[in-house]
Amino acid sequence: MSLGRLNHVGVATPSIAKSVETYRVLLGATAIGEPFDLPAQGVKVCFIDAPNTQIELIEPYDESSPIAGFLRKNPAGGQHHVCFEVADIAVAVAELKAKGATVLGEPRIGAHGTPIVFVHPKDFGGMLVELMETPGEDH
Amino acid sequence: MSLGRLNHVGVATPSIAKSVETYRVLLGATAIGEPFDLPAQGVKVCFIDAPNTQIELIEPYDESSPIAGFLRKNPAGGQHHVCFEVADIAVAVAELKAKGATVLGEPRIGAHGTPIVFVHPKDFGGMLVELMETPGEDH
Repeated sequence: MSLGRLNHVGVATPSIAKSVETYRVLLGATAIGEPFDLPAQGVKVCFIDAPNTQIELIEPYDESSPIAGFLRKNPAGGQHHVCFEVADIAVAVAELKAKGATVLGEPRIGAHGTPIVFVHPKDFGGMLVELMETPGEDH
Repeated sequence: MSLGRLNHVGVATPSIAKSVETYRVLLGATAIGEPFDLPAQGVKVCFIDAPNTQIELIEPYDESSPIAGFLRKNPAGGQHHVCFEVADIAVAVAELKAKGATVLGEPRIGAHGTPIVFVHPKDFGGMLVELMETPGEDH
């Protein structure tokens, strides 16, 4: 495995609508996607394009959302994870496990339609890392 | 102002040396810069290149470092800030102030040799945002 593109920075927020307004007004963001639900992951998400990567705004889908716990600790929201692209998720997972990393669950389909998996923050100095199989051109 | 490149994600760590090893071994990072000191900002930093952006590892320069406080709350380290490029730092600061944002101090020369400034996390949903005048090709 070699370090891939930073696909996005995941940012938790109590309100995607308010965060979108912040990025639009304060930073001049214009390429703002439509928010959509990922009920299987307990989140609503919205992608904002920077020229070289994306910000993924993440709002809890409901109270059982994994993001709800993060927001209880950080009510205003904040940086939640970083996502690097990998060529093959199965290869990446096998390699990480062989090196002793704690991969959280099995790969599942993520917000860009390709398999993703999370790696425990204890393996990355307190930072939650998502790995995403590189999306095709249509994503 | 329009949303610029994500120059880097700033990641606090108690040990740049250990973090570098983590990125090298677990993620296959190969383009790893030499760590260097920024005593005026109270930090040591080290940049790791991903294909489209950088990870900035930040270690306290000493106990009075602004990063030391972050590490007391997050001993393992973690995501500390995101840095977007702007064409002109003075224009960006004036625009942000006019819109009511809390710009932290005056622009100063940052790790890539161009002026940078931080904006208070309360203005960005709990996320500390750095703005950096776009570095030239030699940075």
